[in-house]
Amino acid sequence: MIGEAARSLDRKEVEQLVREVLQQKLRGATPPPARERHAAMGRVAGGPPNPLVVNVSARHMHVTPEHLEILFGRGSKLTKMKDLYQEGEFASEQLVTLVGPRQRIIPNVRILGPVRNYTQVELSYTDGIYLGIDLPLRISGNHENTPGITIMGPKGALTLERGVIRAERHVRMSTDDMNYYGVKDGDQLKLKIDGPCGVVFERVRVRYHPKVVLEVHIDTDEGNACDLESATHMELFK
Amino acid sequence: MIGEAARSLDRKEVEQLVREVLQQKLRGATPPPARERHAAMGRVAGGPPNPLVVNVSARHMHVTPEHLEILFGRGSKLTKMKDLYQEGEFASEQLVTLVGPRQRIIPNVRILGPVRNYTQVELSYTDGIYLGIDLPLRISGNHENTPGITIMGPKGALTLERGVIRAERHVRMSTDDMNYYGVKDGDQLKLKIDGPCGVVFERVRVRYHPKVVLEVHIDTDEGNACDLESATHMELFK
Repeated sequence: MIGEAARSLDRKEVEQLVREVLQQKLRGATPPPARERHAAMGRVAGGPPNPLVVNVSARHMHVTPEHLEILFGRGSKLTKMKDLYQEGEFASEQLVTLVGPRQRIIPNVRILGPVRNYTQVELSYTDGIYLGIDLPLRISGNHENTPGITIMGPKGALTLERGVIRAERHVRMSTDDMNYYGVKDGDQLKLKIDGPCGVVFERVRVRYHPKVVLEVHIDTDEGNACDLESATHMELFK
Repeated sequence: MIGEAARSLDRKEVEQLVREVLQQKLRGATPPPARERHAAMGRVAGGPPNPLVVNVSARHMHVTPEHLEILFGRGSKLTKMKDLYQEGEFASEQLVTLVGPRQRIIPNVRILGPVRNYTQVELSYTDGIYLGIDLPLRISGNHENTPGITIMGPKGALTLERGVIRAERHVRMSTDDMNYYGVKDGDQLKLKIDGPCGVVFERVRVRYHPKVVLEVHIDTDEGNACDLESATHMELFK
């Protein structure tokens, strides 16, 4: 990976990109939109055995310990900025810059911890159009036939061969939740968001984990399409 | 308006912004995402009396003749780049730069013709978050309690006091279509988009016009949420 990164961006290109990032930072701008709204946009509605929480995942990255060291230097660890809704998961303080195939960049992409056994970049279609990447729709961790991307950190760059996806909208469920909704891992549910921009999201993938709290994840395109912030009622059903 | 524009941006600020626009153009980048996909994303499904066509409206602007002259110089007219789906409507060759309250800019925003009796900027929530504008949801032409924005053209700038909106998703219908669907002007329908990112959009506002061709307009957030390009079936219903 390191060797490839070195080949894919020469010194001059890196300098040029760094200048652009600095310019953007100086004027406080991160070019493409999308805010971090993990948890902040969570809404609780009724519904046993656990309340229904919907969170918007802004663009983010998961990283292996090896890739973290390439980007942030030898011995680097993820440091916590804030906890996410699922226990043990957190938004880290570490930010990277993505460089797309058309040399457009997205700075300030946050790494979500803890480190994983694969590196993955999750973007919205809006981001993909901006960068020039035709994003495949994938469940987290499925990197078959997915595109790569170049990632810059403060201490180094790497070029992933694959792992860039639009995450399938999904709901994390424990056994209790699955029993209540009558579904099993991999099934699909519908999510109705009532409000001024009401939407029913179909094909919300059920993802089982014994220890999770019930939580739906949609991306920023989906969160903005339904204006989740203005939702008056939410419902998960078959 | 002209006087206000002059006050709201001093010469130094304008020069700085122009430099940024030029830099972005030099590297072929328009910072925020969203493509123009008028008509290109149209899909035809069955359904008398007219086929169902859904088009994505990327961010755009409508303009009065007076404002056009401020932005593009005295005597300026809109010139056609390409026809849109509705007869007489067109994407013009004229592009402007939007300057948001946080001094972030979106260049290359296209004006849609013909000129109108009001100036209006239609953005997605994704754009609004980027610019720092809390967009109200409005039907085109309703500018009550809407925010303004600064607009730069090649010959001048103006600051609108109002007219920046997220357009309500809507369907344009003639009498025949309204009779078929059993609705009247101002009613709401649902739009189902089947596919890998299937969505049902609720609250699709019916807008009557005697001479239109049946056409649904959604914005880029909505088009990306449902991945309209991959839709396998579409349906409009009560």
